[in-house]
Amino acid sequence: MIEDKNQSRTALEKLGEFGLIKHLTKGFELTQESTLKGIGDDAAILDFKNQKTVVSTDLLIEGVHFHLSYMPLKHLGYKSVIVNLSDIYAMNAIATQITVSLAVSNRFPLEALEEFYEGVRAACKMYGVDLIGGDTTSSTTGMLISITALGVGQEKKLVYRSGAKENDLLVVSGDLGGAYLGLQVLEREKEVFKVNPQNQPDLEPYSYIVERQLKPEARKDIVELLEKLEVSPTAMIDISDGLSSEILHLCEQSNVGCNLYEDKIPLDPTVISASEEFKIDSSMIALSGGEDYELLFTIDQKEFPKIKGNPNLTVLGHMTDKNEGAHLISRNGSKIPITAQGWNSF
Amino acid sequence: MIEDKNQSRTALEKLGEFGLIKHLTKGFELTQESTLKGIGDDAAILDFKNQKTVVSTDLLIEGVHFHLSYMPLKHLGYKSVIVNLSDIYAMNAIATQITVSLAVSNRFPLEALEEFYEGVRAACKMYGVDLIGGDTTSSTTGMLISITALGVGQEKKLVYRSGAKENDLLVVSGDLGGAYLGLQVLEREKEVFKVNPQNQPDLEPYSYIVERQLKPEARKDIVELLEKLEVSPTAMIDISDGLSSEILHLCEQSNVGCNLYEDKIPLDPTVISASEEFKIDSSMIALSGGEDYELLFTIDQKEFPKIKGNPNLTVLGHMTDKNEGAHLISRNGSKIPITAQGWNSF
Repeated sequence: MIEDKNQSRTALEKLGEFGLIKHLTKGFELTQESTLKGIGDDAAILDFKNQKTVVSTDLLIEGVHFHLSYMPLKHLGYKSVIVNLSDIYAMNAIATQITVSLAVSNRFPLEALEEFYEGVRAACKMYGVDLIGGDTTSSTTGMLISITALGVGQEKKLVYRSGAKENDLLVVSGDLGGAYLGLQVLEREKEVFKVNPQNQPDLEPYSYIVERQLKPEARKDIVELLEKLEVSPTAMIDISDGLSSEILHLCEQSNVGCNLYEDKIPLDPTVISASEEFKIDSSMIALSGGEDYELLFTIDQKEFPKIKGNPNLTVLGHMTDKNEGAHLISRNGSKIPITAQGWNSF
Repeated sequence: MIEDKNQSRTALEKLGEFGLIKHLTKGFELTQESTLKGIGDDAAILDFKNQKTVVSTDLLIEGVHFHLSYMPLKHLGYKSVIVNLSDIYAMNAIATQITVSLAVSNRFPLEALEEFYEGVRAACKMYGVDLIGGDTTSSTTGMLISITALGVGQEKKLVYRSGAKENDLLVVSGDLGGAYLGLQVLEREKEVFKVNPQNQPDLEPYSYIVERQLKPEARKDIVELLEKLEVSPTAMIDISDGLSSEILHLCEQSNVGCNLYEDKIPLDPTVISASEEFKIDSSMIALSGGEDYELLFTIDQKEFPKIKGNPNLTVLGHMTDKNEGAHLISRNGSKIPITAQGWNSF
């Protein structure tokens, strides 16, 4: 039997725009009580009753925010959703709906978009979020993704970046630096592959950090944990651009300073070993790496007993008077001003 | 004095991403009572109280949806907002907030983005809408814009595409075909300019249709008019892709057919004269042209006296049994099946 290698490639123009949206979004179930009307009209209709509506949006561009050479489309779909949900959780709110808009050049067959939407669907299912709208169109070059996430929260429970007070403890969820190092591993393997396409990379020793890069999770569980522990953060932000950049946001918007202790920064053993391999300082990675999507927040010192010893949370330091500035207290005790080394796409 | 021709061009990388967002969105006032928190945190916070939330999103790509060669950036900013607000009004809801995300290659100086945001600001002001969030990033090639619009409405007043009944009247606001013809004029002038850059185009005779293309308006006034006239549309959609395509959406989603009378299609005199000049049938333009952003809706026949003689509204025909299909009744009385000739980006 002669194999038709093109059998699973369907050109996008065959479906047209409406057909494409219909095709890609079929099989998405609506599970939120607040979704009155999803895809299929001029707009979606939501009912948040007496709760507040939380809205966040992000734009992801091929070649700038992601590279399809090492980012499988399903992972990309998943991660694009996660990045947005993370912003909703960073308000101490619960994400409920998303819209997903996609532009692709016609070098993408339908099957590629199906893969992308499989990832979107997996994220929607994992986080209990409804896909309620979007736009699908052609681009002149690569792929770009725009997602808007909506969520709900009670007004008095929502947490802004601006509420941190002097002496509040600075707390972070999970561990840091993995996503950045995972990217370094993938980029190295890509270079090796260019030279020798027969070479099968062994990513097994790096599986944790590669997964942190390719399939990050948003910390809905931390929002639920804080609720359960009856901890009310005074300020919160998600770590998308690196710890130092996010700390500076909290300090600036809360009008406080900060002492961050280097020896407290939570690092996974894989991050430590890969840092050594790449000859980069692991603290530097955690401070500037970005894309970990952990939650960084401040709490009143009185709340400390509630989080003490919790394996998901680490106290990194404390907030100070604004005039003291934001500093890293290094392992040898020296005080180094924190500067934003975060990611800048321009 | 030697003029520095570059004095008003500021490279984007100078400001960085946070600086850029801050710079572009300063001076945007929040006027909606429902906006509790706008730009500056991980997400915006809105309070729609007991009203329903309406959400719509659109993606606009340079070279696909717009061409900067004849679209001034300020107009582009304005139009990008209008396109989205139109979807909210098409639900018989009132638009309240937008998020605007922008990706540009670094060939765009800061001043270009300022111009774009001037257009966004003008639209926000004109329609009483708050800018509450967005993302600004670099693209590898041209410019792309993603906007999400939010609005509110009372549940029983919201109008879907699916509510049209047999014998309902089909009504349209304003007139049709102008935006498409305006584009033809602009494209012709662009070709002339290529051959003879000294040639100054005289667009004066075409000002109405050029403005329909470059600076369309969304029909918030029609939503307000229907409220004032106490008319409850049974189904509604905005005309972004051409009359025939939108009629087919209404028919399909409402499970009805339609008779559309060619001689009822409202055309501006400029549309008629420009159609003759371009040797295109003016009805064809209205049916397939798109981008007019008028509202197309159906009403119960009993409501007719309320809209009779209103200069903003035209009865185009009526809905029929689904089995009769959707037809255009031409000027000579022949019955022609309506097919979607709408715009497809792929």
